[in-house]
Amino acid sequence: MPVYTVSNVQNLRICVVMVGLPARGKSFISQKIVRYLSWLSIKSKSFNVGNYRRQTGPPQPNAEFFDAKNKEAYKIRQQAVTKAVEDMMNWFVAEQGVVAILDATNSTRERRDWILRLCRENGIEPMFLESWCDDQELVLRNITDVKQTSPDYVGVDPEVAKRDFLERIAKYEEVYEPLDDNIDRDLTFVRLINVAQQVIINKIETYLESRVVFYVMNLHIKPRCIWLSRHGESVYNIEKKIGGDSSLSPRGLQYAKKLPDLVRQSAGDADLTVWTSTLIRTQETAQFLPYKQLQWKALDELDAGVCDGMTYEEIEEKYPEDFKARDEDKYEYRYRGGESYRDVVIRLEPIIMELERQENILIITHQAVLRCIYAYFMNVPQEESPWMSIPLHTLIRLEPRAYGTKVTRIKADIPAVSTYKEKGTSRVGEALTEATKSRHVLTNPSND
Amino acid sequence: MPVYTVSNVQNLRICVVMVGLPARGKSFISQKIVRYLSWLSIKSKSFNVGNYRRQTGPPQPNAEFFDAKNKEAYKIRQQAVTKAVEDMMNWFVAEQGVVAILDATNSTRERRDWILRLCRENGIEPMFLESWCDDQELVLRNITDVKQTSPDYVGVDPEVAKRDFLERIAKYEEVYEPLDDNIDRDLTFVRLINVAQQVIINKIETYLESRVVFYVMNLHIKPRCIWLSRHGESVYNIEKKIGGDSSLSPRGLQYAKKLPDLVRQSAGDADLTVWTSTLIRTQETAQFLPYKQLQWKALDELDAGVCDGMTYEEIEEKYPEDFKARDEDKYEYRYRGGESYRDVVIRLEPIIMELERQENILIITHQAVLRCIYAYFMNVPQEESPWMSIPLHTLIRLEPRAYGTKVTRIKADIPAVSTYKEKGTSRVGEALTEATKSRHVLTNPSND
Repeated sequence: MPVYTVSNVQNLRICVVMVGLPARGKSFISQKIVRYLSWLSIKSKSFNVGNYRRQTGPPQPNAEFFDAKNKEAYKIRQQAVTKAVEDMMNWFVAEQGVVAILDATNSTRERRDWILRLCRENGIEPMFLESWCDDQELVLRNITDVKQTSPDYVGVDPEVAKRDFLERIAKYEEVYEPLDDNIDRDLTFVRLINVAQQVIINKIETYLESRVVFYVMNLHIKPRCIWLSRHGESVYNIEKKIGGDSSLSPRGLQYAKKLPDLVRQSAGDADLTVWTSTLIRTQETAQFLPYKQLQWKALDELDAGVCDGMTYEEIEEKYPEDFKARDEDKYEYRYRGGESYRDVVIRLEPIIMELERQENILIITHQAVLRCIYAYFMNVPQEESPWMSIPLHTLIRLEPRAYGTKVTRIKADIPAVSTYKEKGTSRVGEALTEATKSRHVLTNPSND
Repeated sequence: MPVYTVSNVQNLRICVVMVGLPARGKSFISQKIVRYLSWLSIKSKSFNVGNYRRQTGPPQPNAEFFDAKNKEAYKIRQQAVTKAVEDMMNWFVAEQGVVAILDATNSTRERRDWILRLCRENGIEPMFLESWCDDQELVLRNITDVKQTSPDYVGVDPEVAKRDFLERIAKYEEVYEPLDDNIDRDLTFVRLINVAQQVIINKIETYLESRVVFYVMNLHIKPRCIWLSRHGESVYNIEKKIGGDSSLSPRGLQYAKKLPDLVRQSAGDADLTVWTSTLIRTQETAQFLPYKQLQWKALDELDAGVCDGMTYEEIEEKYPEDFKARDEDKYEYRYRGGESYRDVVIRLEPIIMELERQENILIITHQAVLRCIYAYFMNVPQEESPWMSIPLHTLIRLEPRAYGTKVTRIKADIPAVSTYKEKGTSRVGEALTEATKSRHVLTNPSND
């Protein structure tokens, strides 16, 4: 039985129109929003005009290309944005899209008026999101990121790239018209000033828009790490039972004792806060860590309802149809009287919001919950996330960067049972593939 | 075992300093914030300077009293704010307060600088919250509210009151200095312009501040109603079992059939949306309603964990210590493997936020969940809310107004068992008192 939230039944379609000079973090914000909404099962996609421009224009144009007076280049750039908007409109219809992001500078009022008109003609709510920045240090840091990662500067000498990029920004500055409290007072818009130091929000009308705004307000770009660990091996793990509230096994306790060393190796002297669930096995795992600790009910394991405390064999025998249904759609399947993965994601949303605001955090939680948190940071699709292998006695370090999340896995080298159940069997054993290998999830598509 | 959220362990103390001319909804916002935070167990209190002024000054001063050039009156007003701030500072220490609201016009920069200095000296984070309004229609509507409800105008002819109040506003306008993006750029502040049509947010630094801002952004003042109902009598209700996922009893079904009429009597032709939980008994109760329906997992009944499906007698026998502990602190008691009232409140928070944004909503849910939602709207203290009587087969209508919530109860006149358990017994029967009588929860203390 599907559970709806207000956001996906109102037949609402939103186009987030990014606005801002190059190197203002527009693509970073766009991709974070897509990742957040996709994780919440809200169909969303970013349309980067730079990618369209590279398909028809020169692969590595210099700054002159971005001069508004360069008629030929202007035509190519106009074609790119037209094609991006066309694809976006088709996507809304063909894929029942809910939130599209038009990731481009959209720096003139003329361009924005054109998008506004198209949105209105197609029954789409436009929300303008401007990233405005006059903090030169921030801009320069961003420029360094861009020239290292943009396809426009692959293989180009860093100094040449930087100089050219600064020139390109200057070309945009010549024609740039920021959103204006007065002229644009009838539009739905958000202005982020110097990475949310000041935020101006105008005429937000839907709940979904307000969620996006709140999310963006909570993002920061300070360097930090997030560590994830399952609890140590528990008595129930050994007995192959799911759920419950058992204590650690002797090997689980060994892991708890080793954890402070593992964390110190990875974090050095950095300060961090430990978050656990309210269940005994996570608190026992955290007991030797010399950091501030918080317990969250929202980090408790997926509730298996009537199956709590059973083995997979017992579930297969007693509820064969449920067992089969869960294998067929593990993300949506809700245990009788319990939860689905989708339910867990909804209750984890405040945890994610809080994580975005915080700096160093170590989370000690449970297999299903950890899969959901990991899926958010690594953009793992819903159909894959419930099948990811996240073994016991392993510390995972996530390092969010501007255009990716770096993953490091630190094995404690303490044996533990495998709790991984393969699809189609009730057998618990090692996973065949590890879906959680290091990968970078955000890319820098650069400007239009 | 207590569960902490980040907001109440950081030893954080915030003073929300209201800013704005009279009749800009400052007291309304102050009281909503206090109600919301208190409901989330965050200790908060509003200090209204107008109340202090009435203690030492004239009970019903006219506009001349508010002239900045009126030296004698100025002294009285200065004493009032000094006493309010003094009480606030004592409250932080004596009551371990977390969020205080200084509800006054605080309309000059000189006054605000003075508060700022006091906050900094006392280790308190100041957050300025300005309500700015140039929509004359809105202001006039607010003036009508104020003169009807303010103690300053009790027994005064409405026309005289209105004229005097407009004069009073004019006195304040002479010296009013709004927050300024540039001059005040180093302060943490929020400016609400024409009831959140535009919101400017500057230097929000803590999660708790960001929650308050998000909450305030979601408030609206359009007239609307919220209807609350428990599901119809269920099979488990008759068997005196708690929890489970049983169907309606024949009498419960009768209630479901009568509900469309009850709602129509109360709502007329108004459009509304029905929210249910994911459990069978709420959906069966909603089945004959001709409105759009949404299911929310967050509206499911308090999870009784290992006690799910048991009667109170069985719980008393099998878990006598738990039974006693729950009676002693019903709000905090968490069923083994289940939830406490506090846990339910945390998972209901997004429901409350969504409710604040919506217009007419009918919620069909469960006893404990309904108590929590009712407690939010009616400001019922935590120790009382789990003991409130909310009988079956009764539709409750809440009508939020500027300075109160009007409650109407509509009995369906269909018999049902009582599911009310008195403190200290395992007997289920009628409550002795109804803690949920009509009452207005917000007051209009008027200006300083």
